[in-house]
Amino acid sequence: MDFKQLFDFSRSTHTLASIERLLFWDQETMMPTQGIDIKTMQKKELAALIHHRKTSKEYEKLLSQFIALDSGEILNDQLNDDQKRSLELMREDYHKMKKLPVDFITEFAEVTSKATHVWIEARQNDDFELFAPHLSKIIDHMKKKADLLGYINHPYDPLLDEYEPQITTQTIDSLFDPLKKALIDLTQQLSHHSIPDQFLYGSFDRTAQFSLNTGILNNMGLDPKKVRLDQSAHPFCMPIHPTDIRLTTHVQDAGFYQGFSATMHEGGHGLYEQGLDPDFFGLPLAEAASIGIHESQSKLWETFIGQSFSFWKGYYPIVQETFKEQFENISLDSFFHAINAVRPSLIRIHADEVTYGLHVILRYEIEKAFMEGKLSVYELPEFWNAKMHEYLGIVPHTNAQGCMQDIHWASGLFGYFPTYALGNLYAAQLHHTMLAAFPDYNVRLENRDFKFIREWLLQQVHRHGRRYYPQQLIEKATKKKLAVDDFLSYLNKKYLPISARA
Amino acid sequence: MDFKQLFDFSRSTHTLASIERLLFWDQETMMPTQGIDIKTMQKKELAALIHHRKTSKEYEKLLSQFIALDSGEILNDQLNDDQKRSLELMREDYHKMKKLPVDFITEFAEVTSKATHVWIEARQNDDFELFAPHLSKIIDHMKKKADLLGYINHPYDPLLDEYEPQITTQTIDSLFDPLKKALIDLTQQLSHHSIPDQFLYGSFDRTAQFSLNTGILNNMGLDPKKVRLDQSAHPFCMPIHPTDIRLTTHVQDAGFYQGFSATMHEGGHGLYEQGLDPDFFGLPLAEAASIGIHESQSKLWETFIGQSFSFWKGYYPIVQETFKEQFENISLDSFFHAINAVRPSLIRIHADEVTYGLHVILRYEIEKAFMEGKLSVYELPEFWNAKMHEYLGIVPHTNAQGCMQDIHWASGLFGYFPTYALGNLYAAQLHHTMLAAFPDYNVRLENRDFKFIREWLLQQVHRHGRRYYPQQLIEKATKKKLAVDDFLSYLNKKYLPISARA
Repeated sequence: MDFKQLFDFSRSTHTLASIERLLFWDQETMMPTQGIDIKTMQKKELAALIHHRKTSKEYEKLLSQFIALDSGEILNDQLNDDQKRSLELMREDYHKMKKLPVDFITEFAEVTSKATHVWIEARQNDDFELFAPHLSKIIDHMKKKADLLGYINHPYDPLLDEYEPQITTQTIDSLFDPLKKALIDLTQQLSHHSIPDQFLYGSFDRTAQFSLNTGILNNMGLDPKKVRLDQSAHPFCMPIHPTDIRLTTHVQDAGFYQGFSATMHEGGHGLYEQGLDPDFFGLPLAEAASIGIHESQSKLWETFIGQSFSFWKGYYPIVQETFKEQFENISLDSFFHAINAVRPSLIRIHADEVTYGLHVILRYEIEKAFMEGKLSVYELPEFWNAKMHEYLGIVPHTNAQGCMQDIHWASGLFGYFPTYALGNLYAAQLHHTMLAAFPDYNVRLENRDFKFIREWLLQQVHRHGRRYYPQQLIEKATKKKLAVDDFLSYLNKKYLPISARA
Repeated sequence: MDFKQLFDFSRSTHTLASIERLLFWDQETMMPTQGIDIKTMQKKELAALIHHRKTSKEYEKLLSQFIALDSGEILNDQLNDDQKRSLELMREDYHKMKKLPVDFITEFAEVTSKATHVWIEARQNDDFELFAPHLSKIIDHMKKKADLLGYINHPYDPLLDEYEPQITTQTIDSLFDPLKKALIDLTQQLSHHSIPDQFLYGSFDRTAQFSLNTGILNNMGLDPKKVRLDQSAHPFCMPIHPTDIRLTTHVQDAGFYQGFSATMHEGGHGLYEQGLDPDFFGLPLAEAASIGIHESQSKLWETFIGQSFSFWKGYYPIVQETFKEQFENISLDSFFHAINAVRPSLIRIHADEVTYGLHVILRYEIEKAFMEGKLSVYELPEFWNAKMHEYLGIVPHTNAQGCMQDIHWASGLFGYFPTYALGNLYAAQLHHTMLAAFPDYNVRLENRDFKFIREWLLQQVHRHGRRYYPQQLIEKATKKKLAVDDFLSYLNKKYLPISARA
């Protein structure tokens, strides 16, 4: 039997999944509002087809002709390394898929759909009591999911593994403990400075913003023949295929920087997808290594590059040219300080580079406590507020601005939050390695030359797809085990001088 | 057994088909250019799934529990009229589908795909010899298709039936013969006048054009919560569902009128789709009656309304306001004459209301002659040019501007052209009936009140879906058999005075 038969089958399934992603994109960007019902029907129809194919006897039969589904032994010695690695990962995915019965998936989809609906209302009215029973149900499902997927050491492990293969709760603990201490320290050192930033707000022409955003995407190396940028309520990157990537941003009249920064963030995701090998489309080798690795790519562009002094030395003149009135009297230094203000705040998605990690760690600790049965849903608000006070020195007045601010739990995304912090750790190691590899790194940035970064990331990260597990991939690219020190020295090196100057 | 089971199955199939249409829309409006390969894969995947479902044993079994597939007898006396009519039509569709073997469909798809590719090149280089063998193959397939579908009187009948159910070659002949004579006469009477129209061309701001076009769609009754308008190379209406309709237009700097007129045309199609009953989605009752009826809706808005004096008496001030510079010194009369110039021309899609029918009849006669074996492909250019001379008094210098101008034959669309002329005949009868039903019809148009038209069409045409066959539907709505006289008296009444004044 020819490997191509299996490949074709898998490519068909992935092609259906690519349509599912297009439907999502359409819903968020283009769909007339009343199109929602047919869109829901379309998504349901496709989801059922995809699940059916992934768990079908036909697929099982095809797969098991090349790899023993129980032992993982490769059954065909004609295969090359790419094919062998693909088979290992396909077997892994297949097992994960089979471990969750259709009933569980259907029921869970209903529970989270209702919970998301209620969460919107509960957040609007700051009514935690309304949301609590739904969250409780979700946690029960999470425990059941962990049991179904199976684990050796910790029930949180299999949830983590969904988003960050082969990372364990133990590893996360060993990273987050020193990270937390250092971030709390740094936050305390930095946050008593007040930095003027009123010039970031005002009235900014949207068309001008859009061409600025398209411009930076082109400069980053996103190919306009493969990538488009639209407006949506929440920015996202929806990869249809390595040759068709849909990015969105959210430009607002009131300020250009948030939209610009979101565009760089999504552009980082987009470059990763653009760098996957289309010839492997349908195999795990053309999939991103993990959510955390994905986040490393977006964070690298959004913050490590897009909030660096060298970047703005090159790019600020363009912004000044575009928004003359707003910025002609604002110095590069003032601008740079304004976009890098460190300030404890209530909302994760608005947090700066330093405090962001603390928001994530707080959520991780809560999820872990839920899974260990050490925390009940009704204790959540108090627990949240106590941690906020401990880590950031502030406490939200409402649960809407506290433990109900994120959609993740309502959607059933447990084990996802840690990837945001891992993304920063990965990005820091990649950034550190690039600085060493390119002695003229900063000069290039000042000259708005970013193509070498794209090229380096392509070789070190993008083109590998899922060939290596996240930690392996980072170790291979940076010649060093995953740790927190590159991230911490990056923050110290960048922020202590800012603090001294401010 | 419950009818709902059959309905659900059919609705699933139609939901997949609605995704197929969204993919087409995306390809023409939004897709990054290099997304074409994955788009082709997506379309192929869905087409296979849809064909599989439509011809599946499961569907056959469901259907045959309610209607005898051979005799057409309804097998369940609990069904209401809507359900019975749906079953009749589903049986019809099922038989048509089953008569064409998968091999034939696959092969034909390949032949037309190649032919379309070659046609583009052949038309570009005016190289009929290059295209001829492909056309020849397509005609062979058409003859085979007619045999597979079966016919009693004429091999062209089953091809017609694909687009215009229950119309026969004999009926078309009985309509087109008098139509042809009258149109040739009228063309000769009108076309020696020269009408100034240079003010239609110049430089027109695209954003202003777009809001003018969106405005007319709203006035026509298209619901912005269900309908969007985009730009594409060729304007089209792509209905996803009665609550999600994608229209496109083609606005150009050089002139506003062509885009505006295209928008009204597509808007007419869109209103029809918006008027189908979403509760029936998945059944033939929520499908348009035919291509010809669809065309009657677009033509009614584009020409019968959108090129009428009353319409422009109300709408010209808006255009003058929008494009002050271009139109402030142009009278309503001059504008009205310019957009209604009758002039024999080579290209069908640019033809005026009077000569358009002759272009269509010419193509019909050629298709019929091909099917009868009375014309060979190599005689086509000469035959075409002779007919052009006979009907319009002009002859193309190239085959690119002659028999290779349309994509239809390369795509395998035989039997389609007549629906363009039928659309005008249907529209004329509907228009005539409305004029009688609403004595203040013209006054309302002058006041830009179009909602009553939409409401009347909804009741008379849209809401019925495929409940009646096209000729029945028109007869029911207009209380009169399908004939050419309403169309001819409309043309005479409109154009003879213009001619006298010019």
